[in-house]
Amino acid sequence: MKIEIWSDVACPWCYIGKRRFETALAAFPHRDSVEVQWRSYQLDPTLPEHYDGTELDYLSTRKGMAPAQVSQMFEHVAAQAKGEGLNYRFDAVVVANSFTAHRLIHLAAAHGQQDAAKERLLSDHFEHGQDIGSQDYLTALGLDLGLDADDLAELFSTDAYADDVRHDIAEARALGISGVPFFVIDRKFGLSGAQPAETFSAALEQAWQDSHPLVMVSAAAGSDAGAAGTDSAAGACGPDGCPV
Amino acid sequence: MKIEIWSDVACPWCYIGKRRFETALAAFPHRDSVEVQWRSYQLDPTLPEHYDGTELDYLSTRKGMAPAQVSQMFEHVAAQAKGEGLNYRFDAVVVANSFTAHRLIHLAAAHGQQDAAKERLLSDHFEHGQDIGSQDYLTALGLDLGLDADDLAELFSTDAYADDVRHDIAEARALGISGVPFFVIDRKFGLSGAQPAETFSAALEQAWQDSHPLVMVSAAAGSDAGAAGTDSAAGACGPDGCPV
Repeated sequence: MKIEIWSDVACPWCYIGKRRFETALAAFPHRDSVEVQWRSYQLDPTLPEHYDGTELDYLSTRKGMAPAQVSQMFEHVAAQAKGEGLNYRFDAVVVANSFTAHRLIHLAAAHGQQDAAKERLLSDHFEHGQDIGSQDYLTALGLDLGLDADDLAELFSTDAYADDVRHDIAEARALGISGVPFFVIDRKFGLSGAQPAETFSAALEQAWQDSHPLVMVSAAAGSDAGAAGTDSAAGACGPDGCPV
Repeated sequence: MKIEIWSDVACPWCYIGKRRFETALAAFPHRDSVEVQWRSYQLDPTLPEHYDGTELDYLSTRKGMAPAQVSQMFEHVAAQAKGEGLNYRFDAVVVANSFTAHRLIHLAAAHGQQDAAKERLLSDHFEHGQDIGSQDYLTALGLDLGLDADDLAELFSTDAYADDVRHDIAEARALGISGVPFFVIDRKFGLSGAQPAETFSAALEQAWQDSHPLVMVSAAAGSDAGAAGTDSAAGACGPDGCPV
């Protein structure tokens, strides 16, 4: 079973959704048969590499929201994050374009470190005030993840993995995704937003049943199945009784 | 190979189905590789702990069946049971809610006695007029099975294993099961009802083949396979003849 998660780094609900999804996955009996792939998405591709201002400034200015309203929103989201064990510090968030961070996630994926990269970027952005647009920070993160220094240098001197990021974004558009996080199971089931873990659990279960339907075995022709009644009602008790 | 059997205690076809399945399993060459797990199901979760009336009263009243029709059904089912060596005594059956009995089955499972618990409950209910809702009876049964007296006391003073019972019932719903007994092999094949032993045998065989497909060996490079022609058509006859 394959689960693709479209998500941005600069997306508070994406980290909360990641935790809730992880809770559901940890409890899913077939978790070892589940492959998770993080897909790139940018909520604001127009952001400059570096933005001089706080997240509150950014949202009030760019989105035309009243500062008080933004503060209230931060409080609400931080409370939700707290519920998942995350310590959001919106006052310390460094506003930055996430495009290069997404390229790093793709480089990490090529070395089996995609989830680790995604996790660190989200945590560092929302909990530790790191500048996810900074080459120094991204290089240090890449080295922490065990990535090759030359590969990291190449990431900043070329546009390596830029096509992969654009491809993910184009696929999101093709699937009709206009917000993140967005979870796609087997390219068949979609879940939008940081749903409760129970919803993810139910979706995992439904998708599993859907891809593994029971093959009904009925009595072979010529057997003495008739003795127990017709095939379809062969000695079974149901809500309406036990037909014979 | 894992076989899960959804079944209720108060389900005449479930005991008959158990015997027929056991007949098939005993004759199955790979029976030592088969794990059987009993899963809880309740045909009538609304039954009171104790019902003052006979099984005939219960079925006529609750299911709106004519007493004569119920009697006739009892006769037919008892005859089928007799064919499997079971001595059903519907006149002595004590109608009771099976929820606590299912909790006991789960407790027994935790001590490797699940099948023994299921067997005794079915036999005591249909052949020996025991009240499967009675704490005294269930305690005595548990002790017979070698369960710990403290564990049994806890079963009645708490709702231990209630979640396991509910989980089984929820899984049945997810699998589309609406009647019991229902046999699921490797979460892939389903059999509804007390099928004839031959049907269970065929299903066991089919599931075994399915989970143990032949590993196709192709000619190694440098072997003399070439003598029989190309690899793809190497000395084989098909629907279109026998290419050389």
